[in-house]
Amino acid sequence: MSQPVFVLVRPQMGENIGGAARAMWNFGLDRMRLVAPRDGWPNQRAVALASGAGRLLDEAVLAEDTAGALEDCTFVFATTARARGLTKPVVTPERAMEMAREKIAAGERVAVLFGPERAGLENDDIAKANAIINVPVNPEFASLNLAQCVLLTAYEWRRGAVDVEPERMEMAGADWASQVEIEKLADHYEGRLEEAGFFFPETKAEGMKLVLRNFWSRMAMTRSDVQMLHGILRQMVRWKERGD
Amino acid sequence: MSQPVFVLVRPQMGENIGGAARAMWNFGLDRMRLVAPRDGWPNQRAVALASGAGRLLDEAVLAEDTAGALEDCTFVFATTARARGLTKPVVTPERAMEMAREKIAAGERVAVLFGPERAGLENDDIAKANAIINVPVNPEFASLNLAQCVLLTAYEWRRGAVDVEPERMEMAGADWASQVEIEKLADHYEGRLEEAGFFFPETKAEGMKLVLRNFWSRMAMTRSDVQMLHGILRQMVRWKERGD
Repeated sequence: MSQPVFVLVRPQMGENIGGAARAMWNFGLDRMRLVAPRDGWPNQRAVALASGAGRLLDEAVLAEDTAGALEDCTFVFATTARARGLTKPVVTPERAMEMAREKIAAGERVAVLFGPERAGLENDDIAKANAIINVPVNPEFASLNLAQCVLLTAYEWRRGAVDVEPERMEMAGADWASQVEIEKLADHYEGRLEEAGFFFPETKAEGMKLVLRNFWSRMAMTRSDVQMLHGILRQMVRWKERGD
Repeated sequence: MSQPVFVLVRPQMGENIGGAARAMWNFGLDRMRLVAPRDGWPNQRAVALASGAGRLLDEAVLAEDTAGALEDCTFVFATTARARGLTKPVVTPERAMEMAREKIAAGERVAVLFGPERAGLENDDIAKANAIINVPVNPEFASLNLAQCVLLTAYEWRRGAVDVEPERMEMAGADWASQVEIEKLADHYEGRLEEAGFFFPETKAEGMKLVLRNFWSRMAMTRSDVQMLHGILRQMVRWKERGD
C-alpha cells in the first residue's frame, strides 16, 4: 500500500460519495472504503456524480461497521471539527499527510475516516483513531462538506508527496499491531473488567468504556505489546481462579 | 486591503457563485468581485447556496468586464489548467498565496481570477494576469470545479496566513503523567504480576520485567490514564479476593 485509504463512514447522499471519489482521484488517490452507506450499495447517484472517477466506486471496499473497515490498518486519522474531550493528537491536514507519508514509507497501513454529512463522526468512531485531523477553518464560519474535506486532505497528500523525503522513523520496522488486534485487546479487557465489576457505577459505565477504548487505540502498540497485555489479563484471571 | 480579491469571471450557475462564497468565507476571505454573471445579479440560487456566507454576495462588486474588475489591482493571478502558450510564471496555489501575502504586506492590491465553469478563462483574461496559478492535480484526471478551485486557493491563503501549530494535543484539562507516576504504575503492575505468577519461567523473568517497564515509559500517558490503569489492576485483585 503506497497511499492512505479514505474511509467514508455512514455516508448519506450518493452524490457526496461520487463527489468524494472525484476529489480523491483529482489528487491521485484511489483506495476508498465505505461503512454502511445509508442508501445501500451500489448507488446510482454516486456513479452519476463520480463521472471519470467511477473506477474508485467499483473498487470500493464495503464494510458493515468502522471496525470492519479498519481491520488491516495500523494508523488511523479521524477528520472532525471537534475533539470532544477525547485525548488525541490533533493535527492539520498538512501535518497529517506528512505523517501518513512517513508511516507508509515505514510499511504501515494508514486510513483516514470521514464522517456522515450531517452529524460527522461519532465518539465511537473517533475512539478508534490514533489522531484527529482538524482543518484550520475560519472560526466564525466552518461549513466544509464531505467532498470538500476529502478534497483538502487529498490535496495535502499530493502536495507533499512530490518533494518530501520520508523521515527515518524511530522504531521503523517494528511489527505494529493492526486495528483488529487492538479491537480484540479492547474487547478482552472490556469483557473481563465487566465481569470484575470495574465499570461502576452503571451510569458511568458507557463513558468509562469509551475512555478505555480510546486509550487502547491512542497507543502506538506493537503486536508483542498487545500479546503482553493479553497475557497480563489472562494471568490476573488465572490468579483469581486459583484463589490463593 | 489585507487580503486578496477573488474575481469570478462570467460565472454561469448561481449555485457555484454561492458555493464559491462559502468556500472563501470558510478560510476568512470576504472580498468577491463578479464579472458579468450569466444569469444576472442578484441571483437567488446563489443566495440559497451561500447560506451563512450571504454577506459576501451582498458586498460583491459587479463589473461589466475583466478589466473593470481589476482597475485598482496591482498584481493579478489567473487560475487555469493550461497556460495555452502565453509566457507567464506558473505557480502552485501555495506559492501564489505566499506571493500574495508578501505583496499585500508591501501595500499592493492582489486579485485572483477564476474562469467560467465550462470553458475556464479566455486568453484575453489570462493576458491581464501577472502569473498563473496551476493546481497540481493528477494528470490523468483533472476535474476541479469552480468552488473547489476557490476552496483550495482560499485554503492556501489561510494555511500560510494563520500560525497554526503543526501538532497540538487536545488535552482539555488533563495533563501528562510525570516520571514518578509512571514509575509507581510500573511498580504496582510488577508487584501484582509477580504475585500472580506472570513472570514465568524464572529464567525469562528479568527480560519480561524490562519489556513491561519499557512499555509503560514508551506510552504517552495522562494522569487519568495512569489512574485508570491502577484502577484496572486493583479491581482485578478485588475480583480475585472476592473469589466469585
